[in-house]
Amino acid sequence: MAEHLSTRLDKVLTQKVRLGIMSILMVLEEADFNHLKDKLGLTDGNLSTHLGLLEDAKYIRIRKTFAGKKPKTTCLITERGRRAFLEHMNTLEKIIRSIPGT
Amino acid sequence: MAEHLSTRLDKVLTQKVRLGIMSILMVLEEADFNHLKDKLGLTDGNLSTHLGLLEDAKYIRIRKTFAGKKPKTTCLITERGRRAFLEHMNTLEKIIRSIPGT
Repeated sequence: MAEHLSTRLDKVLTQKVRLGIMSILMVLEEADFNHLKDKLGLTDGNLSTHLGLLEDAKYIRIRKTFAGKKPKTTCLITERGRRAFLEHMNTLEKIIRSIPGT
Repeated sequence: MAEHLSTRLDKVLTQKVRLGIMSILMVLEEADFNHLKDKLGLTDGNLSTHLGLLEDAKYIRIRKTFAGKKPKTTCLITERGRRAFLEHMNTLEKIIRSIPGT
């Protein structure tokens, strides 16, 4: 039996916070830690966990710098992340189109 | 700051297996445990866990009957599940449309 389309979804991206982070980075290319935190309504710890998982998958890069004496964390989408995101969204669109009434 | 669209996604449905189960039930209305297992390439235990979570959310009902001496488990989508799925997919579509190049 042919497997269902959903089995092709990216496990790293089928998670609310990580999909949110990647959606923002697809538009902005890079974003500040605090911007992502506010935009997604997260705690530092929760955001850090998901950024770590996206970094492990090589979907983002994390750059730590200083703005004066304040540490600054910037997240950048990678080419691999961009490709994975587009493929994931493409599969979601196919699932949506496979369901009558959507 | 306005929260990102992704914060509106349904937590129960932002998971690969559960999205798969619900996508199938949106089309078939009801499905046998073994059909879902084959179609999604899962073990009994894994499928049971996710069915339990969907049942807790009242997105599906589970009916246990006998086919001769063999127990048969049927999963049925509820009206609440149908509404939640459509809303979730609608939010995903909005996210897709918000990203240039998708």
